[in-house]
Amino acid sequence: MMRVIKVVVLMMMMMMVSMVREGKGEKARHFKWEVGYVFWSPDCEEKMMIGINGKYPGPTIRAKEGDTIVVQLKNNLPTEGVVIHWHGIRQFGTPWADGTAAISQCPIKPDETFTYRFKADKAGTYFYHGHYGMQRAAGLYGSLIVDVADGEKEPFHYDGELNLLLSDWFHQSIHSQMLGLSSNPFRWIGEPQSLLINGRGQYNCSLAAHVLRDGSTSCQINSSDCAPLTLRVLPNKTYRIRIASTTSLSSLNLAIGNHKMTVVEADGNYVQPFIVDDMDIYSGESYSVLITTDQNPLSNYWISVGVRGRLPKTLPALAILNYHPNSPSRLPTLIPPTTPAWNDYAHSKSFTYKILAREGTPMPPNNTSHKIALLNTQTKINGCIRWSINNISLVLSSTPHLGSIKYGLKDALQTGKPAENFPSDYNVMIPPINPNSTKGNNVYKLEFNSTIDVILQNANALAVNASEIHPWHLHGHDFWVLGYGEGRFTEADITQFNLKNPPLRNTVVIFPYGWTAIRFVANNPGVWAFHCHVEPHLHMGMGIIFSEGVDLVGKIPSEALTCGETGKLLMKNHQN
Amino acid sequence: MMRVIKVVVLMMMMMMVSMVREGKGEKARHFKWEVGYVFWSPDCEEKMMIGINGKYPGPTIRAKEGDTIVVQLKNNLPTEGVVIHWHGIRQFGTPWADGTAAISQCPIKPDETFTYRFKADKAGTYFYHGHYGMQRAAGLYGSLIVDVADGEKEPFHYDGELNLLLSDWFHQSIHSQMLGLSSNPFRWIGEPQSLLINGRGQYNCSLAAHVLRDGSTSCQINSSDCAPLTLRVLPNKTYRIRIASTTSLSSLNLAIGNHKMTVVEADGNYVQPFIVDDMDIYSGESYSVLITTDQNPLSNYWISVGVRGRLPKTLPALAILNYHPNSPSRLPTLIPPTTPAWNDYAHSKSFTYKILAREGTPMPPNNTSHKIALLNTQTKINGCIRWSINNISLVLSSTPHLGSIKYGLKDALQTGKPAENFPSDYNVMIPPINPNSTKGNNVYKLEFNSTIDVILQNANALAVNASEIHPWHLHGHDFWVLGYGEGRFTEADITQFNLKNPPLRNTVVIFPYGWTAIRFVANNPGVWAFHCHVEPHLHMGMGIIFSEGVDLVGKIPSEALTCGETGKLLMKNHQN
Repeated sequence: MMRVIKVVVLMMMMMMVSMVREGKGEKARHFKWEVGYVFWSPDCEEKMMIGINGKYPGPTIRAKEGDTIVVQLKNNLPTEGVVIHWHGIRQFGTPWADGTAAISQCPIKPDETFTYRFKADKAGTYFYHGHYGMQRAAGLYGSLIVDVADGEKEPFHYDGELNLLLSDWFHQSIHSQMLGLSSNPFRWIGEPQSLLINGRGQYNCSLAAHVLRDGSTSCQINSSDCAPLTLRVLPNKTYRIRIASTTSLSSLNLAIGNHKMTVVEADGNYVQPFIVDDMDIYSGESYSVLITTDQNPLSNYWISVGVRGRLPKTLPALAILNYHPNSPSRLPTLIPPTTPAWNDYAHSKSFTYKILAREGTPMPPNNTSHKIALLNTQTKINGCIRWSINNISLVLSSTPHLGSIKYGLKDALQTGKPAENFPSDYNVMIPPINPNSTKGNNVYKLEFNSTIDVILQNANALAVNASEIHPWHLHGHDFWVLGYGEGRFTEADITQFNLKNPPLRNTVVIFPYGWTAIRFVANNPGVWAFHCHVEPHLHMGMGIIFSEGVDLVGKIPSEALTCGETGKLLMKNHQN
Repeated sequence: MMRVIKVVVLMMMMMMVSMVREGKGEKARHFKWEVGYVFWSPDCEEKMMIGINGKYPGPTIRAKEGDTIVVQLKNNLPTEGVVIHWHGIRQFGTPWADGTAAISQCPIKPDETFTYRFKADKAGTYFYHGHYGMQRAAGLYGSLIVDVADGEKEPFHYDGELNLLLSDWFHQSIHSQMLGLSSNPFRWIGEPQSLLINGRGQYNCSLAAHVLRDGSTSCQINSSDCAPLTLRVLPNKTYRIRIASTTSLSSLNLAIGNHKMTVVEADGNYVQPFIVDDMDIYSGESYSVLITTDQNPLSNYWISVGVRGRLPKTLPALAILNYHPNSPSRLPTLIPPTTPAWNDYAHSKSFTYKILAREGTPMPPNNTSHKIALLNTQTKINGCIRWSINNISLVLSSTPHLGSIKYGLKDALQTGKPAENFPSDYNVMIPPINPNSTKGNNVYKLEFNSTIDVILQNANALAVNASEIHPWHLHGHDFWVLGYGEGRFTEADITQFNLKNPPLRNTVVIFPYGWTAIRFVANNPGVWAFHCHVEPHLHMGMGIIFSEGVDLVGKIPSEALTCGETGKLLMKNHQN
């Protein structure tokens, strides 16, 4: 008992130390992190990962709306740079803290420290992750949860809260993955070895082998790293489950045995509540659902996460919803929920189309001032397979765009004004007739405060009858999702745009052979990546960059600029 | 025939382009290199390595004494920095080109280019390699051969020349090796999977299985990466074989079936010729030997390279000395030369003690002005196993010492004046009584142009009855090897110093439980690493740093300083 009190007192003291008041009710929350390699067994097989403070996944950040988050990030990787992106945080006034290597800042060098300081601008479910090379896929991620400000209330009631950060896991090192993806002949990374819930999974076995009776192998779990996740709940209560996906590749589906879920939040924005048995989560998305623990309290229940959108070769991840006072180690006797067929896109669309803004959500401007259509194609450059947007494949220069644009540096990689549309005769239903594209940095300059419409147009990949799901994520903004459609977008589709209750999001999916329309206001001075959140796709060039109001950006910390042409600029000033 | 002429003309044109005249008979030799990951099968098993221009090992640099070598090095690694050290080149006047990360320069960032420009100051057999993290062990190395200047002659005759760059190869990635070495509990890298000759070996099999009759497995070689090396020679000629070792861990022994070798060069310095049947080569050393192809010309002969100094768990590497006109693929019918027993140190010492300066070699000053005794111990810091020198384990800061010392930066890691001796009662024959040491940057400041004696004192490691071989390599200098001895060095040993014909070298071994004495003149303005050339030992702290005449160092290129405290200095100047 005394020990518990001691721990509580210590925790309170630590919280007091870390909460320097910033303003009325707002606090600065300080974190000291060291990023380094760790040996870890997330799926019971030991590999090298990137961890924070010696652990994987990274610590959960918890803040209140309006708080300032301060993360002193020391890079302990022996030879690699590092950055961390705060996914869903808009970084108003702090575009240099967005944590995108070669866009918002130079990578933090080994043995150096960079301080991220930014406002938790809006309550919601977020996460953070590496945004340099494919370091996210090495395990560099964690949860970032922003509660409503003191005195504010969520528009729904719950008694308790659970948090699920979903990911997929590959046994091949990211260094080798990156090399394979840029090799000729191309080497695809394949499907993940495991799916992970809060960094825990089981390779090539099922926790539910005893009930599946399909030949599944039982797991031999003798490591705490991969011990099954159990979520303790009390019967007859309502729980908010926060769910985010930081997968490298996989689109996921989550279901909880015998429990319906009410979706109430998407990407930090409230949505009109709707009830589902299972839900899709694409990489880069986050949700909150409410569940009521009204099932037979003598049993525990499976939480099951499986693969969608690609022929799954990975077993579902399972966690245990543990009804108190059942033993948390009592495995549920029911069969785990079955993931819908991977290519049942009707099921996926049905879910996605239900996501609509809750009343009170800001409305989009009625009209747009700037239309950009982005054709997503799979292409080739010098025989290497690339993803291209309007025939340009994103290659980042060593100079962060925020600095090179602010200082008007001519020497940084420039490819002129990228195309804002694509040929009217392009047939999205067949492989590209001429698959050759070029590399570029694809910077779209937006007029400050203008309203931007983007049509994300999917197409057939290089192989016939192949078109993939791409979840696109926008930095620095939420956007309204105005609509989705099949085949090639036409002007006539505009009339079908939802301007009544379009959901606000930071990540949105384009379905195979389809299009998705979004709208946002370019009101955040900075340079913002917009890209497919599938890690190998981004690595293969699937992204663009928006710049807006960079002349309004304040002094960029020099620490963010010590590389490439901005680094040379600093040195020139040194020499003169 | 026309094709041959075309190739010759093309080669001449390329040579003309790359030879911009620098002075009378001296040329600048330009190289454009890109460092990147490659998939490679050096021992027939495919792994990821670090290559240059898409190949492993790196290209051989060939220059003449007095030439300027210019290497434009582009870093194509996606997230890692890189540097290259030109092992054996003294870098007079260009200390920033020594290619030692955090000592002579900042690591070259991904997508950036650094130009190494330095003089090939002395004819000899050299090599180059990565000097950041453990990148050398990932395959980042190649040969650097400097011929005598036009009109000059070698002091021995030969008809042809062969070149052997020896290395060892581990299947575990260097990232994982580095993590294991700094983990608690400690994870040793173990013994190499293969030994390589010019980047080629065979994992877990022997080319000589057909003659060994010891149960050896034949190699299945179907990859050009690991095809056996064959060296074509004409009968009854004299060949100079250049041999260098860039192993990560292994001490090696080389022998050629039926052929005696006359040692004529060590580390770019001529030695009194002596004849051997086999020779030891420690990591960081280079030699030239002469052989006469006076054996039965109807046979080919094995060149065999095996492990010394550690219980070998790695099969010898074999190459074929191919007497013309025999088929190069005809495997020798003799048994390959047998490597001497790993712990036959008497054999090793017998070889080492024979290495004496050839007449005409510069003589050492008769007296020293500064004596430094360096005790090599295996220690612990926070439970992690480290190597320490006079109880300080080398940890490099992120600021290159060349810059931090030249600019008098106080903020860079400083540990005061490191000890120049060790307790007189330290018993080198037993494990350290108190194995705790501290981390430091271990900079020894030397008076410019003073004569320095260093006693390298070996000792017992952490385990009882364990003392290892350590080949120490000095940057920026050759040194005279004044003597070797057993047990603890005493003042009485000074009387036995060889001041008559001590060999000049850049790398010297300390034998288990022994000492080695060297002398050099601190006449090269700069900051110079002095360290055990065993890659994991250096990574675990086994090194020190000398600084001398840094006030005389010219303007350091800014490109070498964009990190750590020197980077901040540049930025401060920017802000003011």
